[in-house]
Amino acid sequence: MTRAELSAQILQKQSYLCVGLDADIDRLPRHLLDKEDPVFEFNKAIIDATKDLCVAYKPNLAFYEALGSKGWESLRKTLEYIPDEHFTIADAKRGDIGNTSRLYAQAFFGEMGFDAVTVAPYMGVDSVKPFLEFEGKWVILLALTSNKGSQDFQFDQQENGQPLYEKVMRKAQEWGTPGNLMYVVGATHPEKFKEIREIAPDHFLLVPGVGAQGGDLEALTRHGANADVGLLVNSSRGIIFAGEGEDFAEKARSAAQALQTSMAALLQNL
Amino acid sequence: MTRAELSAQILQKQSYLCVGLDADIDRLPRHLLDKEDPVFEFNKAIIDATKDLCVAYKPNLAFYEALGSKGWESLRKTLEYIPDEHFTIADAKRGDIGNTSRLYAQAFFGEMGFDAVTVAPYMGVDSVKPFLEFEGKWVILLALTSNKGSQDFQFDQQENGQPLYEKVMRKAQEWGTPGNLMYVVGATHPEKFKEIREIAPDHFLLVPGVGAQGGDLEALTRHGANADVGLLVNSSRGIIFAGEGEDFAEKARSAAQALQTSMAALLQNL
Repeated sequence: MTRAELSAQILQKQSYLCVGLDADIDRLPRHLLDKEDPVFEFNKAIIDATKDLCVAYKPNLAFYEALGSKGWESLRKTLEYIPDEHFTIADAKRGDIGNTSRLYAQAFFGEMGFDAVTVAPYMGVDSVKPFLEFEGKWVILLALTSNKGSQDFQFDQQENGQPLYEKVMRKAQEWGTPGNLMYVVGATHPEKFKEIREIAPDHFLLVPGVGAQGGDLEALTRHGANADVGLLVNSSRGIIFAGEGEDFAEKARSAAQALQTSMAALLQNL
Repeated sequence: MTRAELSAQILQKQSYLCVGLDADIDRLPRHLLDKEDPVFEFNKAIIDATKDLCVAYKPNLAFYEALGSKGWESLRKTLEYIPDEHFTIADAKRGDIGNTSRLYAQAFFGEMGFDAVTVAPYMGVDSVKPFLEFEGKWVILLALTSNKGSQDFQFDQQENGQPLYEKVMRKAQEWGTPGNLMYVVGATHPEKFKEIREIAPDHFLLVPGVGAQGGDLEALTRHGANADVGLLVNSSRGIIFAGEGEDFAEKARSAAQALQTSMAALLQNL
């Protein structure tokens, strides 16, 4: 998917919501567990309930790998089921030597047909570039993550005073463009979005870590949005596990609707 | 597997060789391609041909993921086939937020029964610790990798003058011990092994990037070995693709034998 197509979808739906399809088998509604493929049935219902409210879906691959070959089959069917208009992100956080990254890229972009893959930066250029060589596909590079451990290395000052995440963002701009490279920037660092927009004014940011709270969303949108919106805000558990019973899909829709309504209002004021 | 069991195996076999089971489907001998599961048949033959010469096997998961659910089935069968005495490493380079890392740990250690997983450090403490909570299991943390891109971030000087890989190694010693934490240190940085042994005198190092050349192996063993040997030297393509025809397993054995012979000689001189 091109940047223009993604931006058009955002404006049309008045939404920059990404729904995280983290279909943890231990948290699925019980009535699905006797279906042949509970994970796929769950994802299908979530997609039906949210597709007009979001622009992207992001399965975290751990939840599928944990189920072995059966999980990969659920993932494949889920990908097939997601409407073409949606941007699809393999949250894989891969990164390996060149030949191996090329193989991961082939698997996620070629066979599975994802639009984007999250990639870890530690191994540098040859771990990232193979993902950038696929026309119309995207790398979403970990920059400043939403978790507690983001404090351990990502803020470390380099010799020139830059924190590591800034070095990562700047270095990656030698490899990719705003047309094929995004960054992960966690919503748990709202105070950083202004500075991050100075480092990367044009790139899209994938923002995990937003709850149902409007506060964070407002702050990160105010400081993080650019002329093309430039944000994909992800919510996983807050949407897909909003309910636990037979009405889980309705509950998921309500949670997604609340976020989309906030987003529409924020977009009016950009 | 405990550290003592691994060390005993190394001394008994006079080998610290790890064979990388990177069964790239595009490079398998042609006569295997009409078997029902060519990847498993290939691994089976390689394991039979090398098991007395090596102490560990390390499948890189990319080669299995690239084949989707079929690949996971080949991997599962391969793991089952590897003799219990061998140390098994899932070369996965995973690292995600706490809950997700826990799920990966459950998948690799629990369901698949690997002894160790390679983990990427960028996301910090909560991405690594869940892997350390499994009794008798190991994290092998990326420190100084063997690829070109290792130059991009890993050598960056931090404020105190430490390169990033040193910071990663020291920080991780707050999380794990020489009994459940190893480091990846590439053979392409032989001049660094002496310094790395000052940072981590007791930890095992997993060393990728050794070819059939004795030179590198000698230098890294001289500077990198500790009282328990403390090295697992990996060779993947140099062994498993030493031959391309029907005699591929014999060729693989010869390549493994050459490395083991060098290792035995080096062990005598420690």
